Amino acid sequence: MLLSEIASALDLTLEAQDREIERLTTPDLATEDTISFISSDRYLQFLPTTKAAAVVLSAKHKRLAPASAATLVSENPHLSFAQATAFFASPLVKREGKKATIGKGSEISDKAHIGLDTVIGSNCLIMAGVYIGDDVTIGDDSTIYPNVTIYNRAKIGSRVRIHAGTVIGSDGFGYAQTKSLTHIKIRHLGRAVIEDEVEIGANSTIDRAVLGETIIRRGTKIDNLVHIAHNCEIGEYSLITAHVVFAGSVKTGRNLVVGGHSGFNGHIEIAPYVTVAAKSGVTKSIKKSGIYAGFPAIEHGEWLKQQAALSKILKNAVRGSKK
Amino acid sequence: MLLSEIASALDLTLEAQDREIERLTTPDLATEDTISFISSDRYLQFLPTTKAAAVVLSAKHKRLAPASAATLVSENPHLSFAQATAFFASPLVKREGKKATIGKGSEISDKAHIGLDTVIGSNCLIMAGVYIGDDVTIGDDSTIYPNVTIYNRAKIGSRVRIHAGTVIGSDGFGYAQTKSLTHIKIRHLGRAVIEDEVEIGANSTIDRAVLGETIIRRGTKIDNLVHIAHNCEIGEYSLITAHVVFAGSVKTGRNLVVGGHSGFNGHIEIAPYVTVAAKSGVTKSIKKSGIYAGFPAIEHGEWLKQQAALSKILKNAVRGSKK
Amino acid sequence: MLLSEIASALDLTLEAQDREIERLTTPDLATEDTISFISSDRYLQFLPTTKAAAVVLSAKHKRLAPASAATLVSENPHLSFAQATAFFASPLVKREGKKATIGKGSEISDKAHIGLDTVIGSNCLIMAGVYIGDDVTIGDDSTIYPNVTIYNRAKIGSRVRIHAGTVIGSDGFGYAQTKSLTHIKIRHLGRAVIEDEVEIGANSTIDRAVLGETIIRRGTKIDNLVHIAHNCEIGEYSLITAHVVFAGSVKTGRNLVVGGHSGFNGHIEIAPYVTVAAKSGVTKSIKKSGIYAGFPAIEHGEWLKQQAALSKILKNAVRGSKK
Repeated sequence: MLLSEIASALDLTLEAQDREIERLTTPDLATEDTISFISSDRYLQFLPTTKAAAVVLSAKHKRLAPASAATLVSENPHLSFAQATAFFASPLVKREGKKATIGKGSEISDKAHIGLDTVIGSNCLIMAGVYIGDDVTIGDDSTIYPNVTIYNRAKIGSRVRIHAGTVIGSDGFGYAQTKSLTHIKIRHLGRAVIEDEVEIGANSTIDRAVLGETIIRRGTKIDNLVHIAHNCEIGEYSLITAHVVFAGSVKTGRNLVVGGHSGFNGHIEIAPYVTVAAKSGVTKSIKKSGIYAGFPAIEHGEWLKQQAALSKILKNAVRGSKK
Repeated sequence: MLLSEIASALDLTLEAQDREIERLTTPDLATEDTISFISSDRYLQFLPTTKAAAVVLSAKHKRLAPASAATLVSENPHLSFAQATAFFASPLVKREGKKATIGKGSEISDKAHIGLDTVIGSNCLIMAGVYIGDDVTIGDDSTIYPNVTIYNRAKIGSRVRIHAGTVIGSDGFGYAQTKSLTHIKIRHLGRAVIEDEVEIGANSTIDRAVLGETIIRRGTKIDNLVHIAHNCEIGEYSLITAHVVFAGSVKTGRNLVVGGHSGFNGHIEIAPYVTVAAKSGVTKSIKKSGIYAGFPAIEHGEWLKQQAALSKILKNAVRGSKK
Repeated sequence: MLLSEIASALDLTLEAQDREIERLTTPDLATEDTISFISSDRYLQFLPTTKAAAVVLSAKHKRLAPASAATLVSENPHLSFAQATAFFASPLVKREGKKATIGKGSEISDKAHIGLDTVIGSNCLIMAGVYIGDDVTIGDDSTIYPNVTIYNRAKIGSRVRIHAGTVIGSDGFGYAQTKSLTHIKIRHLGRAVIEDEVEIGANSTIDRAVLGETIIRRGTKIDNLVHIAHNCEIGEYSLITAHVVFAGSVKTGRNLVVGGHSGFNGHIEIAPYVTVAAKSGVTKSIKKSGIYAGFPAIEHGEWLKQQAALSKILKNAVRGSKK
C-alpha cells in the first residue's frame, strides 16, 4: 500500500515523497519496501543505519534517521505502531490456497481441521479436535494430540510431541495505550517456531511473535500449563516444569532447567546451563551458569544461607515477643 | 414448584402456608415467587426488607425476617442452599428450542457446535472446535478462536476476541460441606458476561456466577492461563497478565493492571487505576489508586524500601555467621 | 519379547540365560515375566525379594539381586529405564478393537471421538469436542464437558464431572538425561484414575503414571488450571483450588484443602485433614493434620507470628533508614 495511505490512517504528516510499502519490520531488518517504528529506545541503535523506506518516530529522534528514510513524526510511536499493524495482518482464515500436503504414512483424524497451504511431513499423527491453521509446516514423525490448536504460519519440527489442549502461535499480550487509557491491539505479524524433538505438555500456551519468531529450540521439553510469551527464545535441551511463566522477549541459553511456578521478567537474557528453583522470580539477566532461587532470584547457595538466617531471625523474634 | 416440595427435599419444616416458588435469588433481588437463603452474614442486611416468598435461615435470624416471608429454619443454611440449587438448574443440553440465529456475514465452522436459542451477530468468525451452548448471545464482529468453550447463557459483546482453548462460563468452585466432611455441589445458576472489545488469551478460564453474573467490563484485555472465579467483576480497560488468579466475588475498578502470577483473595474490592506487580498476593481491599506489590500486597514504594532493608539484613546476617 | 533383544537395544550385556519378557514394572510388583529397573535408591529395598525375571541396575547393587533374576549392569539405570519404556508402550490409536460400549440413557455428541474397547456406563453426557481414547472406562451418570481430552486406559468413576478443556491421563514430565545433556523420553505406561463423585474444573491437567496409577480419590473437587503430575494420589474429599501444582508422586490424606497458587514438592506425603494456605510451597512431608502456610510451609499459627514479626522488623528498618 502507499505510505500516504498509512500516514493518513495513523493521522501523521508525510512530508517526503510517497512510496509503496510492502512490509512492517523492526528497523534492523528493514528493506526498501518497509515501514519501521522507533516504538522503544531498544530500536534507537538501529535507526541511523536502517534501510527502511519510512520510519515513524518521536520528533526528538528525527535527526538520527538516515536520509533514505521518509520520517513520520508521532507523539506516540508505540501507539502508531499498534495502529499500523492492522494494515499488515493477514486474514485468520484463508479463502484461497492449496489443500494441505500430507506426507506418506501420516494419519489425520477426520475430526481435525487442516488449513490451506499447510505442509505436514511423513509418519505424523494428527488426532481428533486438532486445529492446524493455514501456512503451517510440520516435519516428520510428529504427534499432535487431541484438541491442540496451532495458529497460522507456525513451524513445527520433526519428532515433536504436542499434548492435548496446548495452543501454539496465539497472539501475544500486546497493546498500546491511548490518551483516554483504552488499549489498541498490536496485531501479531510474527509466528511461533517449535524445533525438532521438542515435547510440550498439556494446556500450555506459546504465543507467536509481534514481528519475527518465538522459538523453542531443539530438544527442549515443556510441562503442562506453561506460558511462553511473544518473542521468547528458549535454548536447546531445556526443561521447563509446570506453571512457569516467561514474559515477552526472554532469551535463554541451552539446558535451562526451571522449577514449577517460577517466572521470568521480560527482555532479559539467561546464560546457558542455568537452573532456577521452584517459585522463583527472575527479574534480571543471568550471566553465569549455575543454580538460582528466590524472588528476586539470586545464587542458590547464597539464597539457602539467607533463608536459614531469615528463619533464625524470625524464630527469635517470635520467641522474644512471647516473653 | 411448591415450597413444601423444596422443604421436604431439604429436610426442613414448613410452618407457613404453602406457595409456588419459581426462582432462587439472593434476598436483595428476591420477588414474591422467590426462595432466598441467609447462607452467609453478608446477606443479613437484606433480610428485614426482602420480598422473598420464603427464606431459609438459622434459628437465631428468624426474628429478623419480614412477616411476608415463610421462614424455614436450617442448621446449616449454606448446605441447604447448595441442595436447593439442584432444583433450579436448567439442563446442560436443551432438547427443544430454536436453531441459532446467525447474523449477516458471520462465518461458522462446520466443526463448531452452536446450541439452541443462541444468537450470533453479524461479521463474527466462529472457528473449528468451538462449543457454544444454548441461550448464548454474541454481538457483532467478534472472533472465537478454535477449541474455545462457551457455556450456556453466556453473553459475549461486540468486537470481542477469545483465543484458543479458553473456557467461558464454567461452573465456579463452590461446595457446601456436610457433617461427614463430604461436599455438596452448588449448582451455578448465574452466567458469564464479556463486554465489548474485551480480548481474552489462550487457555484462560472465566467461571459463571453462582447467582447473577461474572462480568468482564468493556475494553479489558486478559492474557493466557488466567483464572477468574465466580461472581468477579473486572473493571473497564484492565490488563491482566498470564497466570493471574482472582478468587470469587472480587470487584475491581477500571484500568486495573496486574503482573504475572499474582492473586486476589475473594470478596475484596479494588479501587480504579490500581497496578499490582508480578507475584503479589492481594489479601485485602485496596481503596486508593496506585501501585502495590508483595504478599500481602502493600504500596509499591514501601515494598521496595522493605525489600532493600530485608536484603541488607540478610546479607549482614549471612556475612556475620561466616565469622 | 526376548530379554536378549532388550539388552541389545539398551547396549547392555546379558550374561544369564535368555527368557521371554512381557511387562515392565517396579521391582516390588514384578512377576516372572517382568523386567525391572533399580533406577532410583527408592527401589533398592525391593531388590532382594523381587520376582522379576530381569533387573537392570548399577554394578554396585548387583550383589543384592536374588538368584532368580537375570541382572543387567548399566552405568545409568535411569537412562536404561527410559530407553526400555519404548518397547512396552502401546500405540496411541488402536487399529483393531471393539466399538465402544455405551450404557442406557447415555448421550454422546456426534462431534466427540470415542476410542475402541472403551466402556461408558449409563446416563452419561459426553459433549462436543471431547476426545476419549481407547480402553477407557467411565461409570454411570458422569458428565464430560466440551473439548475435554481423556487419554487411553483412563478409568473414570460414576457421578464424575470434568469441565471443558481439561486433560486426563496425558504423559507425565519424565526424561532421562544422556551424557551430552539431551533428554530421552520416559514412555508413560501407567494410567490415570478418577474415582466416583470427583469434579474437575476447566483446563486442568492430570497426568498418567509412569507405571501404575495417578489417582484422584472419591469425592475430591479440583478447580480450574490445576496441575497434578504423574503418580500422585490425592486423598478423598479434598478441595484443590485454582493454579495449584502437585509435582510427581505426592500422596495426600483425605480432606486436604489447598489455596490458590500453592505447590507441592515431589515424593512427599501429606497427612489427612491438612489445610494449606494460598501461595504456599510445601517442601517436605506433613505428618500432622492442621493448617500450614508459607514457603517452605510451616504451621499456620507460627507463620502468622513470623509474618507479623517480619513486618515489624522491616517497618522499623525502613523508618530507621529515613532518619
